[in-house]
Amino acid sequence: MRKSLRVEIQPEGRVVNVLSGASLIEAVGVAGVILDTPCGGAGHCGKCRVQVMKNATEPTQAELDCLGQEEIDEGYRLACQTKVLDDLVVRSPYPARMFQQKILTGGVDREVRLDPNIRKMAVSVAQPSLEDQRSDFDRLVDALDDNVAGVWAELDIVRSLPGALRMGESVVTVALEGREIIGVDPGDTTDCLFGAAFDIGTTTVVGMLLDLTTGHQVAVAARTNPQVAFGDDVISRIQHANDAPDGRRQLQEAIIDCINEIIADLCGQAGISPDCVYEVTFGGNTTMNHLLLGIDPRSLGEMPFVAAIREAVNIKARDLGMNMRPGGNIHGVPNIAGFVGGDTVGMILAAGMLDDDRLLLAIDIGTNGEIVLGSKAGMVSCSTAAGPAFEGARIRFGMRASVGAIDKVVINSDVEVNVLGGVEPRGICGTGLIDAIAELLRCGIIEPTGRLQKADELPADVPDALRERLIEGETGTEFVLAWNGPDGKPIVLTQKDVREAQLGKGAISAGVATLLAELDATVDDLDAVLLAGAFGNFIRRSQAKRIGLLPDIPTEKIRFVGNAAGTGAKMVLAARHCRADTERISRECRYIELANRIDFQAAFAEAMMFPES
Amino acid sequence: MRKSLRVEIQPEGRVVNVLSGASLIEAVGVAGVILDTPCGGAGHCGKCRVQVMKNATEPTQAELDCLGQEEIDEGYRLACQTKVLDDLVVRSPYPARMFQQKILTGGVDREVRLDPNIRKMAVSVAQPSLEDQRSDFDRLVDALDDNVAGVWAELDIVRSLPGALRMGESVVTVALEGREIIGVDPGDTTDCLFGAAFDIGTTTVVGMLLDLTTGHQVAVAARTNPQVAFGDDVISRIQHANDAPDGRRQLQEAIIDCINEIIADLCGQAGISPDCVYEVTFGGNTTMNHLLLGIDPRSLGEMPFVAAIREAVNIKARDLGMNMRPGGNIHGVPNIAGFVGGDTVGMILAAGMLDDDRLLLAIDIGTNGEIVLGSKAGMVSCSTAAGPAFEGARIRFGMRASVGAIDKVVINSDVEVNVLGGVEPRGICGTGLIDAIAELLRCGIIEPTGRLQKADELPADVPDALRERLIEGETGTEFVLAWNGPDGKPIVLTQKDVREAQLGKGAISAGVATLLAELDATVDDLDAVLLAGAFGNFIRRSQAKRIGLLPDIPTEKIRFVGNAAGTGAKMVLAARHCRADTERISRECRYIELANRIDFQAAFAEAMMFPES
Repeated sequence: MRKSLRVEIQPEGRVVNVLSGASLIEAVGVAGVILDTPCGGAGHCGKCRVQVMKNATEPTQAELDCLGQEEIDEGYRLACQTKVLDDLVVRSPYPARMFQQKILTGGVDREVRLDPNIRKMAVSVAQPSLEDQRSDFDRLVDALDDNVAGVWAELDIVRSLPGALRMGESVVTVALEGREIIGVDPGDTTDCLFGAAFDIGTTTVVGMLLDLTTGHQVAVAARTNPQVAFGDDVISRIQHANDAPDGRRQLQEAIIDCINEIIADLCGQAGISPDCVYEVTFGGNTTMNHLLLGIDPRSLGEMPFVAAIREAVNIKARDLGMNMRPGGNIHGVPNIAGFVGGDTVGMILAAGMLDDDRLLLAIDIGTNGEIVLGSKAGMVSCSTAAGPAFEGARIRFGMRASVGAIDKVVINSDVEVNVLGGVEPRGICGTGLIDAIAELLRCGIIEPTGRLQKADELPADVPDALRERLIEGETGTEFVLAWNGPDGKPIVLTQKDVREAQLGKGAISAGVATLLAELDATVDDLDAVLLAGAFGNFIRRSQAKRIGLLPDIPTEKIRFVGNAAGTGAKMVLAARHCRADTERISRECRYIELANRIDFQAAFAEAMMFPES
Repeated sequence: MRKSLRVEIQPEGRVVNVLSGASLIEAVGVAGVILDTPCGGAGHCGKCRVQVMKNATEPTQAELDCLGQEEIDEGYRLACQTKVLDDLVVRSPYPARMFQQKILTGGVDREVRLDPNIRKMAVSVAQPSLEDQRSDFDRLVDALDDNVAGVWAELDIVRSLPGALRMGESVVTVALEGREIIGVDPGDTTDCLFGAAFDIGTTTVVGMLLDLTTGHQVAVAARTNPQVAFGDDVISRIQHANDAPDGRRQLQEAIIDCINEIIADLCGQAGISPDCVYEVTFGGNTTMNHLLLGIDPRSLGEMPFVAAIREAVNIKARDLGMNMRPGGNIHGVPNIAGFVGGDTVGMILAAGMLDDDRLLLAIDIGTNGEIVLGSKAGMVSCSTAAGPAFEGARIRFGMRASVGAIDKVVINSDVEVNVLGGVEPRGICGTGLIDAIAELLRCGIIEPTGRLQKADELPADVPDALRERLIEGETGTEFVLAWNGPDGKPIVLTQKDVREAQLGKGAISAGVATLLAELDATVDDLDAVLLAGAFGNFIRRSQAKRIGLLPDIPTEKIRFVGNAAGTGAKMVLAARHCRADTERISRECRYIELANRIDFQAAFAEAMMFPES
């Protein structure tokens, strides 16, 4: 037996217990503190550094390479490299306290008629006698007969039926999925019927527990997707699945372990047993869905990037080793194409596009930007390689929206920034990046081509405070966003950072243009733009329009729809009829491949430019 | 790894290889030599003795108790007690050679229209491209579309689909169970489609391999049911399942291991891979069916003896760990009641009773006698505790119908016997017992009450040779059937042996009388009597009528239908439509419980008597 060790996370003082040998990043994750790991836990980005106050282990080579000797001496370590071998007390480095990254657990929460896939009913089963020698199963079925006809049972239920019917209770409660009996318990347990809906993100996994007798959400919990240990993005995970011995199984086990921990957490919050969880629904991008189900993802990683399966998948909990009622059901929301997955289907469902007369544009911006355009008359979708700029990657001081991130930039006579957590800044997140570029465009410091002007090229009326922020760095002109960065060095926006943002916003807006053309529509025809996902919901709409990331339509037409993928998963959990909707979406939403379209290439080239003010 | 050892069975010189530590009885069973184990392998009946010619192990206490020192010195051991720990050469004791017990592998082989549950088709699947980004599964389904609509696949097929479609072959072969894809192989493999049908007896398991493209039987193999190690009859096995820790699993593993060995044997004979076996069907008594499927059998072992399930069961091969195509199907023939199982349903199917206008009586005599009476107008069934007398148990010199058994007795001026294998007699089997009693009744040595007369009570015209055979033993009068028994002692029929036979035949004929009364019929209404199973098929009909085991109808109306249970399993394997028939039989054949019927008790008392000649 591995030893259980205590890890205290300072300054909040939150304590978790993990098994000896667990990685520290996993331990703080259990405490709900999600660290930034752009290098995927490889130990070279240094962004997950923490200060170990007690019992620091010997530094690894990666830590020696990445951290200064002084930091090592003060107990700084990389959480991704450190194993928990003793009770630990851990503090975060830059601010005194780490915040959890903002995670969207809520969503649009559209009203649906409660109609879960699993139902329970209490029945009274006749005792056998020499006059009534019907089999246990026949007597159970006959007891149900008034309520439901033609039922059958999975073999595992039959196996233990003689025991279940002889517990001394005349009433038993039967759990039914359609006409299949998936559970038989002594007594009346009809009030114990729960389900969990999961949004399986490449980076973050969010689970929500629903009481399926009321439809109410009773708990929510999140974890970093532990597959980040095998690569930060979908392509590196597909490679791992293809190339590593047993890689596909490793990735599947990692995500299932994570889901199982979240279920345990949810059940702990709600005070129920995992045996009361009868169904799990999940939506993720197509690769996440394949990996969770143990499906060979190779075709997703090579031209022409097709899925193994598009359809919804239903599988017994026991066949996936899920921590819930063994005969319960796992329902995977269907995909649309290799790069438009169940999360997008969930977003379309949650946004109600299937039933809406209006022309809606829905965008989920991440490493890829999934874009859907349409109405109940028809929908088209595409995926653009938006690039990870808005998630902080490939940006010199880029970071996710966690403590220390500049998330807002205002430029008047000088630069004012807002820093998450109210601490000294240590980087810039996606919304801050959009703000910075939008403000620099407004005051002419960035030209519409994206070129960062040099100090001496600026008009005379530019205040000195701004002019002084334009410095020449090793790779060209840089703009100082904050002088008080880490180690007393300034946080800058580089010319290359601007180019990365141009690529990202260009891909999104060219995708939008292509879909509009596909439906013979223009920006003016749009009735609304819906922003979904972790990043989209923190965007400042006017600034996003100014840099050309979003179409130039009245700001009030741009709406935030929260974690729409998670809402979609909750809707299919709460209401069976929503599954028919997701099947229709999966089948009918036409996928537009941008890679071989001349019009997309042209639109992309054009969209690289910033709009003229 | 356990060592593989060579066991040579003399004198046929058959060689098998088994793992070190296997029991010798198992090893000779693998060679097709099935030994008699009335004590269930407990080591006290001594009937499985063999002579180990080389490398005999130290005798166990059971062997010391059961065998003489001289026998021990000559290498005699009990096969049930001896472990194979070295290469062995083994001979049988009484005759120089052991024969395999007669096992019925054939049957009535009714003609059915070939229509297997699994079918295969070769299709050409489109390659994906930027213009055709349908998922692998969608492209496969569309390729099938001309042949079958609405197909789906189990997840395990989808998991490996990207690999299967990228093996360089444009044609793949799809195996379908209904509309479910259960196999995808590269190339055209439509000619490779096999299934195995099993008759799961309490004592013997018989498997038959069918080529499902032609319907022909291509191999047959049999083994002793290894569950005999846990008890000879169903009740002791139910007790083991209930009482032993993990007992239910042990029993299930034993029978599944046995089936897997038989499948390996069948595939070896046919020169195919077990991966080509797509379906297994089986029928056994209700307890055998429950134990194979891992169903709690407790309700079968206590009043009122009801089954957990009556219906047919279908389950994936991988879920039972069966040695065949993992996605293939296992089909269990349905039961009728706790003591009338799938073997009886198979017999009814094979006998064609469901479609026959004539009034038929079908009997399978074993430890229990299952009796069915009816026509297409309606059927009734019952099970009687026939007692194991006709299987050689509880008879002083009783044995199964293997080498050394007296299987025929004719009495004229003296007694003539036939001995199986043409060797010196060592006991008497069921048919010999019936013969002996019938002949002794005919010449007045046994009275109609069953009393064995003493020598001095016989009429004067009885030949001396017969008179001398009536001797007084420890328990009363005995009749010497053969003077040249084992160890030079005579083989006798005792008064108690006659009483056991009376009990057995009385139960059967009282069961028949009760069923006839239930359908308001008499013996004269019977159009035919069908005898099924291992024992029934070797009965001499006139003798069976003479002792009152079979109704007194013209001998030509009594027919042998072979291993009808096995034939039933083959029929449902070869033809899906037969499964609807077995469901109907299971539902519609009315089970008559004899235990609480006054008329059965009266008929039983009456039937104990032998008919007057």
